[in-house]
Amino acid sequence: MKKIGIVMGSDSDLPVVEKAINTLKEFDVPFEVHILSAHRTPEGVKEFTSKARDNYFGAIIAAAGKAAHLAGAIAANTTLPVIGIPIKSSTLDGLDALLSTVQMPSGIPVATVAIDGAENAALLALQMLAINDLDLAEKLEERRRKAAEKILAKNEEILEQYK
Amino acid sequence: MKKIGIVMGSDSDLPVVEKAINTLKEFDVPFEVHILSAHRTPEGVKEFTSKARDNYFGAIIAAAGKAAHLAGAIAANTTLPVIGIPIKSSTLDGLDALLSTVQMPSGIPVATVAIDGAENAALLALQMLAINDLDLAEKLEERRRKAAEKILAKNEEILEQYK
Amino acid sequence: MKKIGIVMGSDSDLPVVEKAINTLKEFDVPFEVHILSAHRTPEGVKEFTSKARDNYFGAIIAAAGKAAHLAGAIAANTTLPVIGIPIKSSTLDGLDALLSTVQMPSGIPVATVAIDGAENAALLALQMLAINDLDLAEKLEERRRKAAEKILAKNEEILEQYK
Amino acid sequence: MKKIGIVMGSDSDLPVVEKAINTLKEFDVPFEVHILSAHRTPEGVKEFTSKARDNYFGAIIAAAGKAAHLAGAIAANTTLPVIGIPIKSSTLDGLDALLSTVQMPSGIPVATVAIDGAENAALLALQMLAINDLDLAEKLEERRRKAAEKILAKNEEILEQYK
Amino acid sequence: MKKIGIVMGSDSDLPVVEKAINTLKEFDVPFEVHILSAHRTPEGVKEFTSKARDNYFGAIIAAAGKAAHLAGAIAANTTLPVIGIPIKSSTLDGLDALLSTVQMPSGIPVATVAIDGAENAALLALQMLAINDLDLAEKLEERRRKAAEKILAKNEEILEQYK
Amino acid sequence: MKKIGIVMGSDSDLPVVEKAINTLKEFDVPFEVHILSAHRTPEGVKEFTSKARDNYFGAIIAAAGKAAHLAGAIAANTTLPVIGIPIKSSTLDGLDALLSTVQMPSGIPVATVAIDGAENAALLALQMLAINDLDLAEKLEERRRKAAEKILAKNEEILEQYK
Amino acid sequence: MKKIGIVMGSDSDLPVVEKAINTLKEFDVPFEVHILSAHRTPEGVKEFTSKARDNYFGAIIAAAGKAAHLAGAIAANTTLPVIGIPIKSSTLDGLDALLSTVQMPSGIPVATVAIDGAENAALLALQMLAINDLDLAEKLEERRRKAAEKILAKNEEILEQYK
Amino acid sequence: MKKIGIVMGSDSDLPVVEKAINTLKEFDVPFEVHILSAHRTPEGVKEFTSKARDNYFGAIIAAAGKAAHLAGAIAANTTLPVIGIPIKSSTLDGLDALLSTVQMPSGIPVATVAIDGAENAALLALQMLAINDLDLAEKLEERRRKAAEKILAKNEEILEQYK
Repeated sequence: MKKIGIVMGSDSDLPVVEKAINTLKEFDVPFEVHILSAHRTPEGVKEFTSKARDNYFGAIIAAAGKAAHLAGAIAANTTLPVIGIPIKSSTLDGLDALLSTVQMPSGIPVATVAIDGAENAALLALQMLAINDLDLAEKLEERRRKAAEKILAKNEEILEQYK
Repeated sequence: MKKIGIVMGSDSDLPVVEKAINTLKEFDVPFEVHILSAHRTPEGVKEFTSKARDNYFGAIIAAAGKAAHLAGAIAANTTLPVIGIPIKSSTLDGLDALLSTVQMPSGIPVATVAIDGAENAALLALQMLAINDLDLAEKLEERRRKAAEKILAKNEEILEQYK
Repeated sequence: MKKIGIVMGSDSDLPVVEKAINTLKEFDVPFEVHILSAHRTPEGVKEFTSKARDNYFGAIIAAAGKAAHLAGAIAANTTLPVIGIPIKSSTLDGLDALLSTVQMPSGIPVATVAIDGAENAALLALQMLAINDLDLAEKLEERRRKAAEKILAKNEEILEQYK
Repeated sequence: MKKIGIVMGSDSDLPVVEKAINTLKEFDVPFEVHILSAHRTPEGVKEFTSKARDNYFGAIIAAAGKAAHLAGAIAANTTLPVIGIPIKSSTLDGLDALLSTVQMPSGIPVATVAIDGAENAALLALQMLAINDLDLAEKLEERRRKAAEKILAKNEEILEQYK
Repeated sequence: MKKIGIVMGSDSDLPVVEKAINTLKEFDVPFEVHILSAHRTPEGVKEFTSKARDNYFGAIIAAAGKAAHLAGAIAANTTLPVIGIPIKSSTLDGLDALLSTVQMPSGIPVATVAIDGAENAALLALQMLAINDLDLAEKLEERRRKAAEKILAKNEEILEQYK
Repeated sequence: MKKIGIVMGSDSDLPVVEKAINTLKEFDVPFEVHILSAHRTPEGVKEFTSKARDNYFGAIIAAAGKAAHLAGAIAANTTLPVIGIPIKSSTLDGLDALLSTVQMPSGIPVATVAIDGAENAALLALQMLAINDLDLAEKLEERRRKAAEKILAKNEEILEQYK
Repeated sequence: MKKIGIVMGSDSDLPVVEKAINTLKEFDVPFEVHILSAHRTPEGVKEFTSKARDNYFGAIIAAAGKAAHLAGAIAANTTLPVIGIPIKSSTLDGLDALLSTVQMPSGIPVATVAIDGAENAALLALQMLAINDLDLAEKLEERRRKAAEKILAKNEEILEQYK
Repeated sequence: MKKIGIVMGSDSDLPVVEKAINTLKEFDVPFEVHILSAHRTPEGVKEFTSKARDNYFGAIIAAAGKAAHLAGAIAANTTLPVIGIPIKSSTLDGLDALLSTVQMPSGIPVATVAIDGAENAALLALQMLAINDLDLAEKLEERRRKAAEKILAKNEEILEQYK
C-alpha cells in the first residue's frame, strides 16, 4: 500500500498534526512524519518531495501556519496530491494560513481542509488511496457508520431527556 | 479508468466550471457533468452521489456559491474524495463560499481549491487518479514542464526587454 | 399548539442551545430536541425534517458551527420556517457559521439569528406561532415589558449613583 | 389572510426589494409597501410598526443598507416576526448591513436572510403564514417542485451535452 | 456649562464606559449616566434624547455592542452631536458594533471612536464643549502636555536602559 | 461664527469631499479647504493645525484613504474636535482607511464617520458649532424635517403604487 | 552601484510592476526584470536568488498575487533584503496576497509594501541602497521635496478656489 | 557601523519589541531604543527622525498598535528605510495595525513585517546593513544555517519517533 507523507512546518504544529497521525494509525496505513520548513529548510522540502512518488508515497499532507507556503512549496515539486492543513499560529485566527494555502495559482492545486483540520486531512488522504482499494473504502464507510450511530444514540438520549 | 464527476449547483456556475471540463478533456479522462443543487434538489444530489463509487467514479468535483453546501452534501454521501470549488456568486467576493466549503466538521473532508479555481480542481482530481497510474502521472508532469517552459521563455523575453 | 423542533449538529452545541430550550420552557410551548448532523447523519436529518409538518411542528430551529449546513439541509426538506443559529465552534469566531447559514440561495430561506443567539431563535419561533395566537403574542409582549422595566429600573439606579 | 408589510429604508433599495414584491404577488398574498427610515423618519417607523398587528399584518420585511437599523427598529416595536434584508449599498459589499441586521441583542430577534436576498425574505414570510395554512404550504411545496424540475431538466441537458 | 449625556445599552457595558465617566469627572464637567436600550426601551431612548438640548445637554455619548443601534437611534432624535462607542460584546471582536455605529446613512452622523474607546469618547465630548470655552481648551492642552511628558520621561529611561 | 477647516490628503479625494463643501455652503458657514498630506507634507499639516484654534476654526474635517493618518496627525496637533472621513481609495473598499482613522489610541480622539461619508462629516461639524448656537441648531432641525417629509412623501407614493 | 532585482510571478503582474520599473529608471539605478513563479518554476526562482548577492544585487523586489509565495520563496534563498508587493489578482481584493506576503515566520523577513504598491517597493529598494550612498539619499530627498511642493501648490490653488 | 533605531509607540509594546532588541544584541550591532508616540509626542518623533541619518542611523524600526501611524510618521520625516511592526493591541487581532502600517500612499514606503514580528524586523534591518557588509551577511547566513540544522535535527527525531 502507498504511504502517506506528513510534513509540518514547525514542531509547534505537532499538537494539531497528531490528530492526523492518530487517524492514519487507526487505519493501519503506512506513513512518515517530517518537520520541514518551506522558508527555513527549502532544500529539505524539495529533496523529500521530489522523490516522494518514487519512494512509494501516494499523497502528502502539509501543515503550516501564518504565511503558510509549505503545502504550495511541496505541490510545486510533485504531481502527487498535496493536502494542506492551515494552522492557527498567529493572531489572525488562521485566516492568513487558510488563504496562503487555498488560493493557489492555476496549475498547482492544494487540497485544503479546515483550519486545524488534521483529522480530515488524514481521512482525505485515505479516501484518495481508497479510490482503487475497496477494502480501505469499506473501512472508511464503516468508520462513518459508527460515527453516525454514535450521533443517533445521542439523539435518542436527548429526545428522552427533554420529553 | 475511473470517471470524474462534476456537479455544479446552478447553470450560472458553468462559465467557471468550464475550465475544469476543458482540463479533463485535455487529458482525455472520462467525466460526467451534472447540475444539481444541495438545497433545491437534495434527492438528486443524494442519488447521484451514493451510487458514484459503484458507477465507477473515482472523484467528484462540486462547485457552488454563497452558502455553498454542495460539496459537503456530496461528501456526506460518499467516501470518494470530493473536491470543492467555491464560486464567487454573491456580493462577498466568494468568501462565503470558501468558508462554507472548507470549514467542514471532523469526519467529512472536502478538498477545497481556490475561489473559482476550476482548473486546479480538475488537476487535483487527475492527481488523485494518477496515484496509481504512472501514465497519467507522466502526462501531469509533462503539462507542468510545458507551463514552466512558457514562463522561462517569457523570462528570457522580459530580461532582454529591460536590459 | 404547534411544536418547535430544535436540532443541533453536535452535543457540543448544547451549552448554547440550552438558552433556546429554556426560553421555550418559559413559555410552556411543546418542543422536541434532536442531535443530528447534516454531514454525519444526513438521513436522520431528512427523516425528521420531511415529516415535520405532518408531525405537527410549526417551526424548526437548527444550530451548527463551522461550515454550518444544518439549517440549510433542513430548509431543503421542508417548507416550514427554519431558524438558523450560527455557532462559534472554530477559530473564526463564528463568521464561517454565520455566512454558511445566512447566505442561502434563492428559493430556500433560512431565518438567521446572531452568532450563538439561541434565546432569540426561540423567541423568533414563538413570534411565528404567535402570528395567529393572541395569547402567545400577549405573553411575548409581557416578557418585553418586563425586560424594559428591568432596564428602566437600572437606569434609575445609575442615574442616582452618578448624580 | 394576514398581510405582509414591506418596509425599505430608501427608495434606492427598490430594485432589490422588487424581488420580494414580485414573489408575494406570485402567491396572491396581501401586502403593503413602505419607504421609511429608522434614522430619518423614526416616528413613521414606530407608527406603522406599533399598529401592525392590529392592522392585520402577519410579518414585516425590512430592507436597509450600511448601518442597517431598520429591521431592529421595527422589531423593537412589535412582537410580530421581522425579516431583515441586508442591502449592499456601501463600499463594504453589504457586510456592514448584514452584521447590523443579524447581530441583534437577546430579546429582540430579527430573522435575517442573505445580503440582497429579497426573494427569500418573501418566501420566509409566506412560510410563516403557512404554518397554519395548508393551502399556502402546498403552494410553497409546488413552487419548490417546479424549481427542482427545472434544475433536473437542465441536469439532463448538460449530461447529454458533455456525454 | 453644558452637560454631557452618557447612555449605555446594557449595564454589562459599564466596565468600559467607566473610563468615560472618570475622564469627565477629571475635568469636573457636569454629566448624566443612563442605561437605555435602543431595542428594549426605545421609548426611553426617545424621551431622553428628544429633550436633551432643552435639558441643557451639549453632547451625548452612546455605548453599545453587537448590532449597535443605540448611537444611531439617539442621533435620529436630536441634532446634538452624538458620539458612538462600539463595544466588544459578541464573538466578532467588536467589528459588528463598529460597522453598526460608524456606517450611518447621509443626514444622521455619529461621531465614532475606537472599539471600547470610552476615554476618547469623553475627550471628544470635552473638545466639542471647548470650541467656545478657552478654559476647558487649556485644560485639554494641559492634559496632553502631561501625557507627552510622561512618554518623554519613559523615553529617557529606556534610552538609558539600552545604552 | 467659527470656521470649519476641511483638509484632504490628495486632490483625488475631492469628488467625495465636495459633498462636505456643498453641505457647508448650504448652511452658509465659513470654511477653508486644504490639500495637505500627513506623509508628504507633514510640516504643512502641522502648521495649519497648530494655529487652527487661534485662526478661529471651530472644528477640522480630515479626509484620507489607505493608511489614513491625516485625521490622526491633525488631532495630534490640536485639541479642536477633528472629524475623520475614511476614503475608499485602495483595493480594500475603504476598510484600511476606516481602521486607520477610527482606532485611535487613548488621549487623541478622531470623530469618525462612514467610509466616503463626507456629507455627514459636514453635518457633524455643524452640530458641534450648534451646541451653543440655537439658530444653527434650528437650521439643522429644519433640514431634517425636510428630509423626513421627502421620505414620507415617497412613502405615500409607493403605498399608492402597490395598493 | 548594486543592482535591484525585480521578479514577478506572472506577466499579468506587469501593469502594476511597471511603476516600480519606471521609478528605478527615474533614478538611473541598474536593475534586472524577471518573470519567475514560486510554484511553476521553483528551480528558476532558486537559481536566480541564490546567486543574487554574488551577481551584485543589493535588494530584490517580488510581486505576486493570490497565495503569494514568491517573496517568501526568494527570501528563503538569500539574506539580501526582499521587498514583497502583494498583487490584487483574485476575487479577494489582494487580501490573500497581503497576508501570504507579510505574515512570514520568524527568521525569514519580507519587507512588505501596500497591495499593488509597486512605486513604493522601488523607493524602498532605493532607500536601502541609499543607506551608504549620500548622493542617492539626496536624490530621494529631492524627489520628496518636489512631491511636497506639488501638493502645496495644489493647496494654494484650492484655498483660492473656495475662498 | 550604522546604528539601528527602534521606536515603539508605548511602553506596553516592549514585550514584543524585546525580540527585536535581543536579535540586534545577538549580532552586536549598535542600536538605540525610544518610546515615542506619533499622536502624543509628534514633536519627539520628528526630532529623532529628521536627524536620524546625520546621527549615523542606517534604518529605523517602528512598532505601534491600533491606528498605527508611528512607522508612517517616521517615514514621512526621513529617507532612511523604515521598518514597521504592527502590534496586536486592540480587540481586532492586529489587523488594524497591519493595514495602518502597510497601506502607505505612493512616495512614502514602510517595510512592513508580520503582526508582532519583531525578530524579523531586526533581521530585516540587519539585512539592509549587510547589503554592503559581507561580514554581517555571512553572520546572517550562519544564523540561517543553524536554524535549518535545528529543524533538520528535529526532522530526524520525529522520523525515528513515528517509524
